Amino acid sequence: MKTLDTAAAPAIATVDLILFALGEAGLEVLLIRRGAAPFLDAWALPGGWIHTDEDADLDAAAHRILREKTGVATPYIEQLQTVGNATRDPRGWSLSVAYVALIGPGQAPAVRGGNAADAAWRPVETVLAEAGDLAFDHGDLLGLALARVRRKVEYSTLPVHLLPERFTLSELQSVYERVLGRRLDKSAFRKRMAEVDFVEPVPGEMRRGSNRPAQIYRLKEARSTAFFDRVL
Amino acid sequence: MKTLDTAAAPAIATVDLILFALGEAGLEVLLIRRGAAPFLDAWALPGGWIHTDEDADLDAAAHRILREKTGVATPYIEQLQTVGNATRDPRGWSLSVAYVALIGPGQAPAVRGGNAADAAWRPVETVLAEAGDLAFDHGDLLGLALARVRRKVEYSTLPVHLLPERFTLSELQSVYERVLGRRLDKSAFRKRMAEVDFVEPVPGEMRRGSNRPAQIYRLKEARSTAFFDRVL
Repeated sequence: MKTLDTAAAPAIATVDLILFALGEAGLEVLLIRRGAAPFLDAWALPGGWIHTDEDADLDAAAHRILREKTGVATPYIEQLQTVGNATRDPRGWSLSVAYVALIGPGQAPAVRGGNAADAAWRPVETVLAEAGDLAFDHGDLLGLALARVRRKVEYSTLPVHLLPERFTLSELQSVYERVLGRRLDKSAFRKRMAEVDFVEPVPGEMRRGSNRPAQIYRLKEARSTAFFDRVL
Repeated sequence: MKTLDTAAAPAIATVDLILFALGEAGLEVLLIRRGAAPFLDAWALPGGWIHTDEDADLDAAAHRILREKTGVATPYIEQLQTVGNATRDPRGWSLSVAYVALIGPGQAPAVRGGNAADAAWRPVETVLAEAGDLAFDHGDLLGLALARVRRKVEYSTLPVHLLPERFTLSELQSVYERVLGRRLDKSAFRKRMAEVDFVEPVPGEMRRGSNRPAQIYRLKEARSTAFFDRVL
């Protein structure tokens, strides 16, 4: 029985972010090339230590780290899971509070900052195929994050955060399809969106293109992080 | 820009457990009366610091802390969420990896250990009504845990962990009802259980009582933590 809880070395406490955006081929993830040991020059998720002298809480730490390492200011973030063990970091017992972050098109940053030497958007499937090459256990974290996003696509408003604030139903359907990796029936999709009722038309706003004008929609305010019965 | 990530004081890294069991009145939670500062003599969730010299990982820390503080050996545990901020612990920036734990009847421990002066099973609703009296932010953690369990009751096999390994369908229905706080229709419940197919009859085992003999069931192995489309 220990008498002093503080006798052992403290755990290293970090936050890592799995930042997704939609590219041409589907989901992409932002990776950073490490500019310092351990795992010097390896690709990694953006992450860093909690700064107990400046971070008010975990969410604030996540936002700060994302801003410093990637230049992204305020995307959608949600806590994913915390991993912690004696072996994931050669410097000592380390825990990482992992966050999933999503951004819409046009927010993809040109990045350089902190101890990150380089950064790049990479297709998720490509990165997962070589997940063991990532620093630390970041391949595992990416796998967990992808599973979370795919599950929540079917049950929540989460995909909306991969779109601009205003979008057509065709664009919304395309997001669901690209995240899930399968096609959806258009009329069934529209019927289901009407039932779950989390988007609303923007009065008078239409998109005009080569087809007939399409109504513009936005996320309903109160539904911004809601969980539903199965959406799809 | 910081040059040394380790310049600030390290975060306090703890694990807290919200341990549920079913009592006569519904869900009960195990509380510990604190035997040390801070919050001396206040009721709290069982918890403790990560011991980086002996805990292989976070789950191991959770099991150790539960064992030391309550005498419970190996219940069902799952990670709930991590809270961390500058204000929850007067000793400094603190994070807690919170776990939900469930145990079946007859495993409720007679407890005394670590810096816990006392322990008691309390009805969840009673504790939540006075959640502000709990140490730290443990009232908030209890609320998060209850929401998780109630949601997973509707989508997963989780309630089974509140039962002995073998049970009748009437006992299973009773667990769902007590966690949800509402009655369920017997024939609809049995139809749904057949559809989601996560329990199986134990060949030849019947329970004989004042009514006609009831078939004994058990959880199917492969389904021990499965998530389903809505169960109820």
